[in-house]
Amino acid sequence: MLKKVLIANRGEIAVRIIRACAEAGIRSVAIFTEPDRYALHVKRADESYSLGEDPLAGYLDPLRLVNLAIETGCDAIHPGYGFLSENARFAELCEQKGVAFIGPHSSVIHKMGDKTQARDSMRAAGIPITPGSEGNLANLDEALSLAGKIGYPVMIKATSGGGGRGIRRCDTPAELTSQYPRVISEATKAFGSAEVFLEKCIVDPCHIEVQVLADSQGNAVHLFERDCSIQRRNQKLIEIAPSPQLTPEQRQYICDLAVRAAKAVNYVNAGTVEFLLSGNEVYFMEMNTRVQVEHTITEQITGVDIVREQLRIAAGLPLSFRQEDIYYRGYAMQFRINAEDPKNDFLPSFGRITHYYAPGGPGVRVDTAIYTGYEIPPYFDSMCLKLVVWALTWDEMVARGRRAIDDMRLHGIKTTANYYQQILKHPDFIKGKFNTGFVPAHPELLNYSVRRHPSDIALVLAAAIAAHVGR
Amino acid sequence: MLKKVLIANRGEIAVRIIRACAEAGIRSVAIFTEPDRYALHVKRADESYSLGEDPLAGYLDPLRLVNLAIETGCDAIHPGYGFLSENARFAELCEQKGVAFIGPHSSVIHKMGDKTQARDSMRAAGIPITPGSEGNLANLDEALSLAGKIGYPVMIKATSGGGGRGIRRCDTPAELTSQYPRVISEATKAFGSAEVFLEKCIVDPCHIEVQVLADSQGNAVHLFERDCSIQRRNQKLIEIAPSPQLTPEQRQYICDLAVRAAKAVNYVNAGTVEFLLSGNEVYFMEMNTRVQVEHTITEQITGVDIVREQLRIAAGLPLSFRQEDIYYRGYAMQFRINAEDPKNDFLPSFGRITHYYAPGGPGVRVDTAIYTGYEIPPYFDSMCLKLVVWALTWDEMVARGRRAIDDMRLHGIKTTANYYQQILKHPDFIKGKFNTGFVPAHPELLNYSVRRHPSDIALVLAAAIAAHVGR
Repeated sequence: MLKKVLIANRGEIAVRIIRACAEAGIRSVAIFTEPDRYALHVKRADESYSLGEDPLAGYLDPLRLVNLAIETGCDAIHPGYGFLSENARFAELCEQKGVAFIGPHSSVIHKMGDKTQARDSMRAAGIPITPGSEGNLANLDEALSLAGKIGYPVMIKATSGGGGRGIRRCDTPAELTSQYPRVISEATKAFGSAEVFLEKCIVDPCHIEVQVLADSQGNAVHLFERDCSIQRRNQKLIEIAPSPQLTPEQRQYICDLAVRAAKAVNYVNAGTVEFLLSGNEVYFMEMNTRVQVEHTITEQITGVDIVREQLRIAAGLPLSFRQEDIYYRGYAMQFRINAEDPKNDFLPSFGRITHYYAPGGPGVRVDTAIYTGYEIPPYFDSMCLKLVVWALTWDEMVARGRRAIDDMRLHGIKTTANYYQQILKHPDFIKGKFNTGFVPAHPELLNYSVRRHPSDIALVLAAAIAAHVGR
Repeated sequence: MLKKVLIANRGEIAVRIIRACAEAGIRSVAIFTEPDRYALHVKRADESYSLGEDPLAGYLDPLRLVNLAIETGCDAIHPGYGFLSENARFAELCEQKGVAFIGPHSSVIHKMGDKTQARDSMRAAGIPITPGSEGNLANLDEALSLAGKIGYPVMIKATSGGGGRGIRRCDTPAELTSQYPRVISEATKAFGSAEVFLEKCIVDPCHIEVQVLADSQGNAVHLFERDCSIQRRNQKLIEIAPSPQLTPEQRQYICDLAVRAAKAVNYVNAGTVEFLLSGNEVYFMEMNTRVQVEHTITEQITGVDIVREQLRIAAGLPLSFRQEDIYYRGYAMQFRINAEDPKNDFLPSFGRITHYYAPGGPGVRVDTAIYTGYEIPPYFDSMCLKLVVWALTWDEMVARGRRAIDDMRLHGIKTTANYYQQILKHPDFIKGKFNTGFVPAHPELLNYSVRRHPSDIALVLAAAIAAHVGR
């Protein structure tokens, strides 16, 4: 097994990886920039190192991180998600310097990160992709001609894009004409590449993604799918596993596709193959070559510790199970509790957490790096807590989700928690019927009033008294 | 389903029941005595009522509680564990006044609470019991004569006893002669009955208990067993499900016995049949006619929400599954985090909790009613938190247990948490080999030093600042 791992990330995913290391008997090394000096991942790791005053630079410097790993005697780096997790150069530096990168080979990251190369690979492997350009677009004329052939609406996408950015929908030739230069400009700024491609816009599909795991000995398995259709502007809000919307045949088909996709690119480690489902049609969307925010719900239904498997795979060990050993039970749902104000266009709501009390009891899991008194810094993403619920049946899971959100206390900032309670009450959601059009179709769900639990005043006072008396 | 439930209890089990009610759409009514005014169960219930200044009297007054249930429009009472949960008169009053008692019929509580009646019923049903007296002992001479026949050591037990009290082991006729009047005196004081019986003392057995559920329509199932061999003075400390010490044949045999026992007494609702396992011999010990502290680990391995099933059964509904639908996965382990000082003979350590931070991440469940600033009152039992871990394999579960205890912050009182860390490091425990003699055989496990996480100082300061700034 690995001996010591540098965690090239922060926040809840860093804490998640520290926990997996602790359970596997691996020493953990945290990194931080000064705004994160009091962050939980720094407190919980076995060692931690400051990367300077700049909030972001330290987290985004591949060479410095690989060198730090070597200096501190680490045999591997876990990149988490975001930051450098899908940076092929970072993985390549690790390969060159003999540090295990906990993820796939740099060439695979590069290939799947280039959306047109990824489409080409999948087409070659017989995976259905959306109708669209082969390779990148040469110019607007090619875009207009192709769109005319496959029919509107179409999407213009940045070839190096990801995370829901660098994407525009065009319903008419006029829109395509005006959006085309904008996506190129956005792509250049955000991803450093002007390349774009075009695909047919699948209107209001379900977002279905399959978790895969593959070891360096040629074994590849899937851990079933997640339904991430509850999104706002391409950002996932609530994720569910398994999807309540698939027939067993569809599940088998889509999971087999994902394993075939992983094998086609000689994938190693944990990855996610994302698909769009529209009626009975399934289209490959993209592959995320890292652990995902929502890996938790797959862990809850399958019992597999995905991060632990990542560590095993990076150490050259085989998967600890075969495909036929894996089954799922019940339903799991993750709420991304974001420090945002839903009533104010989801504007970030950073600041000090004056009171936090974790929900608990049966079927509840929390992954977070916040605590009472923690100040959420304004430099990073706004997700501050992952609340995961599990139950044997769909109805019980929905009820448990409501109860668990109600159980949680998180004061001092605005969050998306109360908005999720509205989604949980919607009849279509309760029936398990929703697609990526659900959130935009229901702006009325933002018309809720926030009630403050009256008993919380006593809790906050008690904490204040304790802080005085106890020290 | 039920509409409104009065919870005749406090602390974590009251919170557990409130959560189950919330998920089932049932209103919850909490009760409290004045020392519990700021307790979490009071804050989280839909309604709550004070029962006066005396710390205990209100929780132990059957008539008052049944009347309160009627006055507040409750259709049922959940007794939890401890307090009146195995008080046949309480159940009988509920039956008379038309309030559903969430437990078995009063006559069954009475029969299983009387240890000699329980032994007689089990003997009649063909359940193996320890060699010993048929019925109660008439006098010391009968005890000595019987002990001479079955062989020492023997146990003298209070017929109405329970919870590990009113029990003495006697290794010689002289000890029996001196202990006999003491148990009678203790039984009279503690349980209001001078009746005692004798049974052979099974030396250092495993404590194996089986969770059963039975509905009012004649369906009875088991949810597999728990291994509660890690005990100190008959008090359970760490519970595990399933037992790592049973062969599949032993498991089947013992689980079948439990269902047969439940059916023999027309048992309805959740109950636990406790057995002693010594080599290949299995003996019935007692049946607990209520939900148990350690029901959590059975929920983790089977996915069944036991408290929810209790509510369904009390409403007259059938079990929501059949025996063949139930299977278990992985291992679960519960740590009873008690407010006690292991280094000072486990003396209670009540007081104010100056800092509490819940452990989290994969495979961790917490059931508690404590919070930062909460003052644990000295009038009740010392268990303040149930930390439950689950993992696919035994080794991963043990590692997760260590990690989760390490993850938790609980300051201001002494607890058993660090002592449990020593147990988790013992080679016999790691191998899954232990019996009720484990704790007394290893006093050296008490020789640990407590280290304070240096980073916690910052957390406590942050909480103090937040409490000031936030309000």
